[in-house]
Amino acid sequence: MQGNSKAPVPTLARLATYFSVLGDIEKQGIAFINSSKIEDRCGISASQIRKDLSHFGEVGKPGVGYEVVRLRKHIGRILKLDRTQRVVIIGAGRLGQALAAYPGLTEYGFEVAGIFDNDPAVMGTPVSGLVVRDAASMHALLPELNAKIAVLTVPGPAAQQAADMVIEGGVRRILNFSPAHIKVPRSCMVRDVSFTQEFAVLAHYSED
Amino acid sequence: MQGNSKAPVPTLARLATYFSVLGDIEKQGIAFINSSKIEDRCGISASQIRKDLSHFGEVGKPGVGYEVVRLRKHIGRILKLDRTQRVVIIGAGRLGQALAAYPGLTEYGFEVAGIFDNDPAVMGTPVSGLVVRDAASMHALLPELNAKIAVLTVPGPAAQQAADMVIEGGVRRILNFSPAHIKVPRSCMVRDVSFTQEFAVLAHYSED
Repeated sequence: MQGNSKAPVPTLARLATYFSVLGDIEKQGIAFINSSKIEDRCGISASQIRKDLSHFGEVGKPGVGYEVVRLRKHIGRILKLDRTQRVVIIGAGRLGQALAAYPGLTEYGFEVAGIFDNDPAVMGTPVSGLVVRDAASMHALLPELNAKIAVLTVPGPAAQQAADMVIEGGVRRILNFSPAHIKVPRSCMVRDVSFTQEFAVLAHYSED
Repeated sequence: MQGNSKAPVPTLARLATYFSVLGDIEKQGIAFINSSKIEDRCGISASQIRKDLSHFGEVGKPGVGYEVVRLRKHIGRILKLDRTQRVVIIGAGRLGQALAAYPGLTEYGFEVAGIFDNDPAVMGTPVSGLVVRDAASMHALLPELNAKIAVLTVPGPAAQQAADMVIEGGVRRILNFSPAHIKVPRSCMVRDVSFTQEFAVLAHYSED
């Protein structure tokens, strides 16, 4: 399977984990690593790691393992982390601010190109080196910001309108942190990140 | 399958979505709803919805659908959202503050019982009606806070120590927002929420 093909989401999520772990390993100056050592660092089983990587043509050398720098570059290409991807954040509340300041984004090649809010009290204030812009100007500004991904950190009732606006501005990929279900054209992709869902899963597994 | 059995995580995540959607429907005073209407509101296919619900013994009446209040209660019991679950937040930065203020938590029956940080500049400051406590006091305070779930919103290098401390304080369920992989005893469960992973998945699906 080549980098341009569409791998299943759980596989991509694991690849992103390997990418992150390999970054740490690279910083430590380790040249080769085997799947058991990667398992120790991320909790994904060595057999799953070998399966995922061989799926993308990567086979570790017996007794030596994978070449760290080369493997990380390859995974970066598959995930398209080998280029800068521009992101806009819609909603400059606490969560929007937290994401704008999240160090992991830079590490993965994501650049926050703009942050928008519809609250006049917030517009014009600084957030992580950017100035919060008026959400009403999104339509005009998004094309020049050239962002491919929009992150919605708005309240549920505002989410559909925010999604419509970013799509009108040319964005096709949305990461939705709002609790609302948003409807988008077929050409768009939405990933929902639901905090309450994560809590609910843990709650089910609680002892009492 | 009864409420006490352990359903697979993706099923639980969908149940949490139904629970949320049914809450909105209930607020609108709708008594019965069919799977197609639920699909319209959450994007999960009607056939998947019927399959999930029948798995837990819920079958809609032909031409009528599911009884909204009863179905929501049943799902709440399965997810253990029919009781208050106490949560502590470790890390009072932007993300910790955002989660402490997240309205969805209350709606799902989660109560933030405490918030901790190891930064003296932050200790003692108010966050969502709580006062940030010294992380060093966690061990002593956690048992009396009686929290079952800990949320880690600390930087990666601080995550393992924070996890060790909450486990020492009796917590067995951890929602890990840090980018680090944390190791826990078998009796504990960790859910990782990785923002960079979510971005990486979207990046792979971007057009160029």
